[in-house]
Amino acid sequence: MTKRDFLSLEEWTADEIEVVLALAARVKRGGVTGGLERKVLAMVFMDPSLRTRTSFETAMFLHGGHAVVLEPGRGSWALEAEPGAVMDGETVEHIVDAARVLGRYADALGVRAFPRGREWAVARQDAILRSFAQHCEKPVINLESARRHPCQALADAMTLREKLGETSGKRFVLTWAWHPKALPTAVPASAALAAARLGMEIVIARPPGYELDPEDTALIRRIAQQSGGEFVHIIDDPDEATVGADAVYVKSWGSVKLYGNPEEEAAQRAALRDWRLTPDRVKSTRGGRGIVMHCLPVRRNVEIDDAVLDGPNSVVVDQAENRLHAQRALLLELLGSGGMGQ
Amino acid sequence: MTKRDFLSLEEWTADEIEVVLALAARVKRGGVTGGLERKVLAMVFMDPSLRTRTSFETAMFLHGGHAVVLEPGRGSWALEAEPGAVMDGETVEHIVDAARVLGRYADALGVRAFPRGREWAVARQDAILRSFAQHCEKPVINLESARRHPCQALADAMTLREKLGETSGKRFVLTWAWHPKALPTAVPASAALAAARLGMEIVIARPPGYELDPEDTALIRRIAQQSGGEFVHIIDDPDEATVGADAVYVKSWGSVKLYGNPEEEAAQRAALRDWRLTPDRVKSTRGGRGIVMHCLPVRRNVEIDDAVLDGPNSVVVDQAENRLHAQRALLLELLGSGGMGQ
Amino acid sequence: MTKRDFLSLEEWTADEIEVVLALAARVKRGGVTGGLERKVLAMVFMDPSLRTRTSFETAMFLHGGHAVVLEPGRGSWALEAEPGAVMDGETVEHIVDAARVLGRYADALGVRAFPRGREWAVARQDAILRSFAQHCEKPVINLESARRHPCQALADAMTLREKLGETSGKRFVLTWAWHPKALPTAVPASAALAAARLGMEIVIARPPGYELDPEDTALIRRIAQQSGGEFVHIIDDPDEATVGADAVYVKSWGSVKLYGNPEEEAAQRAALRDWRLTPDRVKSTRGGRGIVMHCLPVRRNVEIDDAVLDGPNSVVVDQAENRLHAQRALLLELLGSGGMGQ
Repeated sequence: MTKRDFLSLEEWTADEIEVVLALAARVKRGGVTGGLERKVLAMVFMDPSLRTRTSFETAMFLHGGHAVVLEPGRGSWALEAEPGAVMDGETVEHIVDAARVLGRYADALGVRAFPRGREWAVARQDAILRSFAQHCEKPVINLESARRHPCQALADAMTLREKLGETSGKRFVLTWAWHPKALPTAVPASAALAAARLGMEIVIARPPGYELDPEDTALIRRIAQQSGGEFVHIIDDPDEATVGADAVYVKSWGSVKLYGNPEEEAAQRAALRDWRLTPDRVKSTRGGRGIVMHCLPVRRNVEIDDAVLDGPNSVVVDQAENRLHAQRALLLELLGSGGMGQ
Repeated sequence: MTKRDFLSLEEWTADEIEVVLALAARVKRGGVTGGLERKVLAMVFMDPSLRTRTSFETAMFLHGGHAVVLEPGRGSWALEAEPGAVMDGETVEHIVDAARVLGRYADALGVRAFPRGREWAVARQDAILRSFAQHCEKPVINLESARRHPCQALADAMTLREKLGETSGKRFVLTWAWHPKALPTAVPASAALAAARLGMEIVIARPPGYELDPEDTALIRRIAQQSGGEFVHIIDDPDEATVGADAVYVKSWGSVKLYGNPEEEAAQRAALRDWRLTPDRVKSTRGGRGIVMHCLPVRRNVEIDDAVLDGPNSVVVDQAENRLHAQRALLLELLGSGGMGQ
Repeated sequence: MTKRDFLSLEEWTADEIEVVLALAARVKRGGVTGGLERKVLAMVFMDPSLRTRTSFETAMFLHGGHAVVLEPGRGSWALEAEPGAVMDGETVEHIVDAARVLGRYADALGVRAFPRGREWAVARQDAILRSFAQHCEKPVINLESARRHPCQALADAMTLREKLGETSGKRFVLTWAWHPKALPTAVPASAALAAARLGMEIVIARPPGYELDPEDTALIRRIAQQSGGEFVHIIDDPDEATVGADAVYVKSWGSVKLYGNPEEEAAQRAALRDWRLTPDRVKSTRGGRGIVMHCLPVRRNVEIDDAVLDGPNSVVVDQAENRLHAQRALLLELLGSGGMGQ
């Protein structure tokens, strides 16, 4: 029996994702208890977290299990990712060994590692996450890497279904927003992949120069087509972006093309502060009732106006809540006793 | 049904506090088990903690629940407190959103946020704590704010009763002590409020310039009178302070008047190192047997001499232990199933 | 009844250690559940940890208990160790008080404190650990101090037995390795003490100037003789070191003699990069099948080559796994209800 990782949505089949989403809905309705007794999830956070940490720790507890939280470089040892490294520098432990050891203590491993280094060609390989998955004998869960945030994507898919009912053919708009920092593309790529899986019409709105990784765009297109959806087009204008949308997913991300040139990237981004979701833009959604999504944390009045976040279109808090339910289902599926949800 | 926060002692009625104290005594005697099964407390620490964290985490565990510990700006995101802020600076998440989301994951929220900023008029509003309470749909517990430390006050009240028996009319002396840093007034104000609730004679000893916030002094006086106690007077002399005391509560705090001028405050404080609880001063308590209290952490031989802390008058360790019992009672009261203690 | 600490292997009798090792083997085979219900272990980490933290937290959970993790100077208060200190500096709480208070909240206390200060004569006294043990009314477990790492030693003994079967007379080689930093001698001393307890032939290989603390060497010799083993000799040459070994324990440590002169120590160490466990040196072990041990974290290709760590002789991951089983046994022995394993 080979172990089963959850590193990205697209590495699981549509049927496998359906099983998790169905169980998540059942978990949310209540009454699903136990299933993770004596199970331990070790979570390795190489970057900060509020929702991911709290929701996973709560998920394990609610079903009788326990989550251990490790923070390499702070309370735990700084980790080396390079295969074959001669470790005479600052890193104290190689991921190979950390992964093997944690696989002996825990029943599953969660890893959060944002992009690092100066080259997108390198960062996009998700070496830290993949190395943990390769060397740990237990299931590894991606808690957000350079490329993917599949647990967020599960919660996004769950939220789209809850709020829109039948999703086929409904319009999902992923729209870029300005932000003071160049953020990873993991969330926008993963959200668009989730919407593609649900057979939605996908629109991506972003300023020129802020295209997603071309391989990700191609993958979104292919999965949308396979699922009966459509990859409509890419829009350059934030005012056009939201027109007719059933769901507007707001997210900032840094230019992949200028990944190695942060100063140039910041200068280019400086002119783009108008990419902000305002009440007027929300009015242009389908019937003015398009839902507004964001993975949080959100920069208020920078990515999205207060009036939108605190208004009736916003579903961001429900979306964050669904992290808990989706992850309970995921953990029961990966670790649960008794074939729950299978 | 509205939710019930625990932000300060004075916002709960005397009867409500009595219920918690009675349950705390019962919890301490042993035999009260369960009551928090499947309950989660999320604790947000914006400042360090040993007792608060350990006692709450233990309290949740002992009754079948679980506590999640978050540290914004370290392992979690830096939080914004300002309403309407245009978040293009260092803070990553607004308290509005953190409070809403944590309210979906957890059954109660604990918040520790010491005073921040340059103006007491601003700091005294406890904006971080109040903002969490306003935006979280679940009970919020104050784990120490600029103004109040009500969980410490519960343990203080419990300790005064345990050690003094009938507290009415007994003399409670809150005495200032020198300390290398300007500390918040939350503990001294809360301790005096607790003693006032118990109908004690309240004496506050402090050097000129170290008056508590005038509104707090007035509140202590009013509650003492309502409870059949008395606000005797304010004393300027550390030798006089302890004379005839049944309980001496030692605590350092910074000058509220010089809150915005830390250099001037430090210069004024430098002359006050004689404000230290010595064995001689303890001898002047009622029959030499007055109890010595401190919330801990204590600066040994700076606030209180070793001989006092390690001597028979000190109850500081029992006082710290009572944090656990008082908080178990508080949590059972706020979250417990089965109407325990009601 | 006096409380029982676990500060070093040698402070427990051979029979007491046998009880723990036998229970550890039983725990590893499975089927030992419960025993720590409603028990709390408070762990104070003054230095980083991955294995220790994860394995203890998991151990407590697996038997129904809970571990609280505290990090003084980060999320918790900076601690003072000096008796009688006038605490007007940077430390916020004295160990005396932290130990007393934690002893009221928890059923046992774990403490990790690596060597500090400029003098080995001072550091070797393990003042922080010993102070916690002196002032805490509950059992204190050493999670690694300047002098000892007895939980690692338990796992080492367990691993030696598992892999070698009868250990009497088998050859245990502790060999120094180069490392960019001067590390504590706690692990090598403790590992050699464990092997001595098992009646093995002890060889210590290290460059001149890297002798262990003389008192530790004498103790290893004495215990080896008492246990029917032998302290063969001390070797200066890394190529000779491994010849005929049944077990090679690789570990770097700093010069005790130059403890107060880090620059001189680093200069002396710089010439010693050849002290590294290579495949050729492994071939020289008994039949080429000597096991390779390391406590982890290991500097790959600096202390031990990749080919060795990833090859058939390495037992480092099993050794790390045994931390969990050994500690489950230790905790059941110290805290367990029902006389388990006794």
